[in-house]
Amino acid sequence: MRIETLSEGGIERQASGRLNVGTRGPGLTEITDAVAEWVSGTGIRSGLLTVFCRHTSASLLIQENADPDVRRDLLTAFDRLAPRSAGYVHTTEGPDDMPAHIRTMISGVSLSIPVVEGRMTLGTWQGIYLAEHRDRPHRRDVIFHLIGS
Amino acid sequence: MRIETLSEGGIERQASGRLNVGTRGPGLTEITDAVAEWVSGTGIRSGLLTVFCRHTSASLLIQENADPDVRRDLLTAFDRLAPRSAGYVHTTEGPDDMPAHIRTMISGVSLSIPVVEGRMTLGTWQGIYLAEHRDRPHRRDVIFHLIGS
Amino acid sequence: MRIETLSEGGIERQASGRLNVGTRGPGLTEITDAVAEWVSGTGIRSGLLTVFCRHTSASLLIQENADPDVRRDLLTAFDRLAPRSAGYVHTTEGPDDMPAHIRTMISGVSLSIPVVEGRMTLGTWQGIYLAEHRDRPHRRDVIFHLIGS
Repeated sequence: MRIETLSEGGIERQASGRLNVGTRGPGLTEITDAVAEWVSGTGIRSGLLTVFCRHTSASLLIQENADPDVRRDLLTAFDRLAPRSAGYVHTTEGPDDMPAHIRTMISGVSLSIPVVEGRMTLGTWQGIYLAEHRDRPHRRDVIFHLIGS
Repeated sequence: MRIETLSEGGIERQASGRLNVGTRGPGLTEITDAVAEWVSGTGIRSGLLTVFCRHTSASLLIQENADPDVRRDLLTAFDRLAPRSAGYVHTTEGPDDMPAHIRTMISGVSLSIPVVEGRMTLGTWQGIYLAEHRDRPHRRDVIFHLIGS
Repeated sequence: MRIETLSEGGIERQASGRLNVGTRGPGLTEITDAVAEWVSGTGIRSGLLTVFCRHTSASLLIQENADPDVRRDLLTAFDRLAPRSAGYVHTTEGPDDMPAHIRTMISGVSLSIPVVEGRMTLGTWQGIYLAEHRDRPHRRDVIFHLIGS
């Protein structure tokens, strides 16, 4: 088992960016194209991309971008992993708030994706999604950081 | 959907750090202030912060820093997701060890947080927590890495 | 609570690499040694390592490298967290596909590990594992990125 080196080089630049995403309640919003366009626009061809979600009731996923049924089943899975009713103590912000925190904990708020030859190294079936876990529409802030050359 | 560039610039410096946290059994210990102070002290104003937990039975979370009931419900959620008794094969280190490994797997041991204008880009309600999953008090090692300029 | 600075310095170089791992159905394949060897070979002594899995039905874990029973119990935990039969809508790729996506969502596809004094800062009991979640053997692509000096 041996790792093959793809590239080696200097490191010179960084850029940060922000995306404000409007959600329509529980669901996955794909942001892959917007991210690919921004990465390309920075002119950084080789480096590391970080995606960070500034919320505790919305999260980031890399998941299948082909069959929409996958996203539907993922939402059902969230419902089973963090049920809406489970005797929560924290209920002041509504019955959807605590399960939203747990779903965010399970799926996470940061992603790291290497960039090679000007493109994210996502696999063929991988898309980047913002997952909204609250019932009502929200505006969600996502921060991007790209470092490389 | 278009990402707005916040900053662009050179990249010059890095720093690494270590925090040893004493825990008192299952629970969340907030480390946000210590991290903010260290980031500020490095003088790096723009870049990427990485937080890494060197254990397999303690993990890192970004979660709500307002109502303590949220943390209580998160611990209950861990109990439900990785029950204390589930016919585990690995029992030599006690009944709390295997659920601790599973809880660590679910929540993760690394976080990536962009730094802009001298501050972590955490949202208003986001705090950084070390989650202890073993019954007894432990000393836990957390490593920090900051790269930027 | 105060973070102790371990190192400070310049930032000059980056490298990326690729590992193609053959899996034999559900299970964990340890890749720690291959990663340590590659990190060492780059000559980068201080920096940040990123590991990225280019799939939506295989994931990355940092878990205990001592007792193999831990890995066995982790697989059982995946079975309980994302059961094989749960009334999934997406079934066209077989009964193991949708649970594989959910298990990947729970455990994640990217890891960030600081490198200090030429070595990953993994704890004594931490190993890096590729987790295969499909029934049949697959070839899985893992990308590495190291930045530092």
